[in-house]
Amino acid sequence: MARPQTDIDAGRLQLLEAVDIVVRARGSADISMSEVAAAAGMSPSNIYRFFETKEALFDAVAEKWFAAKIAIMEEVCASDMSPRDKMVAFFARRFEVMVQQYDADPALFRSYMEIGAQNYEAIAGYVDLGDHYLSVLVADAMEAGYFKGFTLDEMVSLINQMLFVYINPDMLTMIGTAKLKVEKLERIVDTIFAGLTKAAAEPAREAQMKIVS
Amino acid sequence: MARPQTDIDAGRLQLLEAVDIVVRARGSADISMSEVAAAAGMSPSNIYRFFETKEALFDAVAEKWFAAKIAIMEEVCASDMSPRDKMVAFFARRFEVMVQQYDADPALFRSYMEIGAQNYEAIAGYVDLGDHYLSVLVADAMEAGYFKGFTLDEMVSLINQMLFVYINPDMLTMIGTAKLKVEKLERIVDTIFAGLTKAAAEPAREAQMKIVS
Repeated sequence: MARPQTDIDAGRLQLLEAVDIVVRARGSADISMSEVAAAAGMSPSNIYRFFETKEALFDAVAEKWFAAKIAIMEEVCASDMSPRDKMVAFFARRFEVMVQQYDADPALFRSYMEIGAQNYEAIAGYVDLGDHYLSVLVADAMEAGYFKGFTLDEMVSLINQMLFVYINPDMLTMIGTAKLKVEKLERIVDTIFAGLTKAAAEPAREAQMKIVS
Repeated sequence: MARPQTDIDAGRLQLLEAVDIVVRARGSADISMSEVAAAAGMSPSNIYRFFETKEALFDAVAEKWFAAKIAIMEEVCASDMSPRDKMVAFFARRFEVMVQQYDADPALFRSYMEIGAQNYEAIAGYVDLGDHYLSVLVADAMEAGYFKGFTLDEMVSLINQMLFVYINPDMLTMIGTAKLKVEKLERIVDTIFAGLTKAAAEPAREAQMKIVS
């Protein structure tokens, strides 16, 4: 969310900070509008001036949570790095943001993960957006000659699976930051660029023969 | 667990089936010895003839759960397939067993996942055993000329990360079997064999020069 321009924006920011306070104080379960209002020092009815529904509030929570990641994805896509370096930056920079958030307050991080799981409609669009930006990177790499013989969708799915442990924030608690390292992420991207091109050579030829025949 | 040879073995099998009955009836939370005894039609004190502690009972639950997977790993390691085919079979056959177990009763599967999380000491050894067998496969592949420039531990870690979505049973619920497919698993193994060898060429030379100088 940008700098507050209006009264409404300022109230919204204040309420998002209040969500943080509530979550820090007692976790993520069944957060109510009146509880958030109370933490912001507002009357229970006043909160509806800023967020008409609880869904609208959680949409704003998701927007705030994903803002840094979207900025990274836009920046990387617009940059003039090589396809390989773009792919590394695309995953590594978001992973580093996650690790920072996690290390700053692991319990708070886990609570926000739970809020995300409870309000999946609020985050589904951001997951799709990640796939969209990844598709742009993959399409650029394909134009540069990589990933021959694969469709865009196949590539996006395989890349998401091979780098899953660096994409999904639950992995920080499930696997731990001792095992998840940016150098390994880089090595996996190198493997994707080196191996998926080479391994694809044969099916690619078969596919071309089918088209020709 | 093998066929019951003795009274004790028969009683143990009966109690493991009773655990299944209890879990099916009311989930995984805080299962007690007396509850399992009751489901097996035993007196609460009689269960201790077969399992001296609750830990011993859950060790046996884990042994039963992992038996099929260990058999697969032993069989694959002893087979004379190519390094690539061994690696595919090693992961794909266990993945297929997981999918069968999951599809047969998703709720029961999730409950056993929870029991595993609650009794991690009981399953830690099996996780290590998986890494041990994977190390055997990787060492064989290295002897055949693959993965140049990597240490055994680096390879085991990278392979576990790249195939994580096909190894960790929680992924069946988190990602879903619509997206997790054996053909993709095969493609990832191909990428590992094609890409990790090629990508490793340069660091390998550097490492050798360091040793020589």
